[in-house]
Amino acid sequence: MFRIKGVNGYIEWKGDVLVWLLTEEHLESISIGAGILGTGGGGNPYIGRLRARELIRKHGPVKILDVAELPAESQIICVGGIGAPTVGIEKVRDLQSFSALRAIEEFTGKKATALISNEIGGSNSLEPLIAASLSGLPVVDADGMGRAFPEFQMKTFFVHGASYYPLAVCDEKGNTVVIPEVTSPKWAERLARAATIQMGCVACYAVTPMSVTQVKETAVLSTLSLAYYIGQAVLQARDKQEDPIKGILNAHPGQVLFTGKITDVARRTSEGWARGSVVIEGLDSFSGSEMKIDFQNENLIAYLDEDPVCMVPDLICLVETDRGEPITTELLRYGFRVTVLGFLAPHLWTGEKGLAVVGPRAFGYELDYSPLWKE
Amino acid sequence: MFRIKGVNGYIEWKGDVLVWLLTEEHLESISIGAGILGTGGGGNPYIGRLRARELIRKHGPVKILDVAELPAESQIICVGGIGAPTVGIEKVRDLQSFSALRAIEEFTGKKATALISNEIGGSNSLEPLIAASLSGLPVVDADGMGRAFPEFQMKTFFVHGASYYPLAVCDEKGNTVVIPEVTSPKWAERLARAATIQMGCVACYAVTPMSVTQVKETAVLSTLSLAYYIGQAVLQARDKQEDPIKGILNAHPGQVLFTGKITDVARRTSEGWARGSVVIEGLDSFSGSEMKIDFQNENLIAYLDEDPVCMVPDLICLVETDRGEPITTELLRYGFRVTVLGFLAPHLWTGEKGLAVVGPRAFGYELDYSPLWKE
Repeated sequence: MFRIKGVNGYIEWKGDVLVWLLTEEHLESISIGAGILGTGGGGNPYIGRLRARELIRKHGPVKILDVAELPAESQIICVGGIGAPTVGIEKVRDLQSFSALRAIEEFTGKKATALISNEIGGSNSLEPLIAASLSGLPVVDADGMGRAFPEFQMKTFFVHGASYYPLAVCDEKGNTVVIPEVTSPKWAERLARAATIQMGCVACYAVTPMSVTQVKETAVLSTLSLAYYIGQAVLQARDKQEDPIKGILNAHPGQVLFTGKITDVARRTSEGWARGSVVIEGLDSFSGSEMKIDFQNENLIAYLDEDPVCMVPDLICLVETDRGEPITTELLRYGFRVTVLGFLAPHLWTGEKGLAVVGPRAFGYELDYSPLWKE
Repeated sequence: MFRIKGVNGYIEWKGDVLVWLLTEEHLESISIGAGILGTGGGGNPYIGRLRARELIRKHGPVKILDVAELPAESQIICVGGIGAPTVGIEKVRDLQSFSALRAIEEFTGKKATALISNEIGGSNSLEPLIAASLSGLPVVDADGMGRAFPEFQMKTFFVHGASYYPLAVCDEKGNTVVIPEVTSPKWAERLARAATIQMGCVACYAVTPMSVTQVKETAVLSTLSLAYYIGQAVLQARDKQEDPIKGILNAHPGQVLFTGKITDVARRTSEGWARGSVVIEGLDSFSGSEMKIDFQNENLIAYLDEDPVCMVPDLICLVETDRGEPITTELLRYGFRVTVLGFLAPHLWTGEKGLAVVGPRAFGYELDYSPLWKE
């Protein structure tokens, strides 16, 4: 078991391989970067950061593994939070991800040797760190989305062949649901969501182990370190009183889609999700224009004066213009000065199989996916 | 394994012990008796009868065991249907109870040696026969209610100490949910119900095995044979053109609460249940009076001119006055000539622990239980 208390963290690349011992001082950057990659969702990153800090202080740092370092016989278990972010900021998660890890280990009879994030966006980037700190397991620098998405089946893992069952869902009270077998990933979502709603719209889950080959072929790689470096760029820009937006775009190539002030937010929590839309009035070079963004936990489509200019699976990310701080959908409110950034989706999403699960039509829009730019 | 094809059935008492080989010809009586004991719910008994007949024709008769005959090392698994009866008459169950039996056996690593009904009311009296016919297992002449109730936790098993988890819930499509651990029987209900709603309001479940002692101490005994004898009384009265109501009350002591014509039915399917009320206008000696009965799948409270005269857990049973045919809540409609019968609840329900789970207050009524008569 890997567990060292009171050790200084480090993060560096040795040739092509990342060497990372994650300690408390990495959490601020990760939470900012993951907040940006979360496209508005994935759970409140600030709360995730406080929870991870508490556990790392208590149980020691977490080793982050590059995919190249995974031993051949690894059993990699994906753990994550499920629920409505609007609820998650009031009903804070406890140790459910650890309970879910233990429940799926018990059910499958297979012990995890490493953990992986279900989605790098928002607090879900930090959820495996909580189970890792408690269990002493390492975490793989990768995830199943390269962003955040609102539904369980929306993972590159499942689209590209990893198994979506059995899975376990746990609440903080000691209730557990195991889904041994389902006929499709969407059915896993339906049943896990129904349990989550009963559990108070906040739960954690763990999915049957993946092999190293499965992780290599189906995960979006190097996303925890990407979140860290994006967050670092924001913090450094703040330190040097430079433009944080430029810092973000240097760390991760993307586009400024819009700059303005939030003038309207419609939001409701329904079927276990935070749904709604936000309207932004243009400022500076966007003066006279308006951007409307629809969301279901995450931002789905951005309309510039009614034309869709960025859409799922591409990333639509709202940050405070001055500080580069990400704004999640549950915290959107009138008056925020925001910059809307667009990033191209990971290539695992943009083929036919990926778009069937997370393209605009998967969310009920009569639109074909049009990428932010051609690679 | 016990399985004989093309054998004639028999049912008789040898001294104190019931000797019963259940064949197709017993099903009509059971479905009538179980329909009456179902107090309006438990699933449509006619559909349950057709399903059981199909399987018994295909796989042979089912041995019914008196509790006294259970070998000491028995593992008795409770199987049943869960859902809204309004849906169950359109979306007919398939072999889900057998899937649920296999799922719980696999999860617990314990093989059933006998099955038991969750509730003797309605088609749930017949649900174990389906799994029994497929598996070759015998069924115990007993159940967990002595009637029907709308919610999972409402079983004498759980009130008197048998375990309510793990349990498995299955649909007809191949989806399975296992609930390995919950903090209360009510939580098992919440999570199983949420899964059932996703499964289309019709599913079957199986609960972790009980021991012989647990069945002896927590089950309502001899209820499958009671259902059979009540049904026999109805059929014999019809044959001899006698009053079927008298036949029922001879087979099972009870009271005529009301006789009249249905003049109003309010019914809605919400949260996975059929809820509503029925109004009956008095005829004969009840002329000038009115009875209103509230139901949630099952009849809960009967008001005679606004006074509650019979209430849960006592049984309120509507039968067609002429034919003694039970009328389930999903089939109530204007114009039916009905007799309302009242029966005392099994004593396992009428103590403090039982009333906390199925007394009027458990269903939201500000009423203390007042028994139909004092024993």
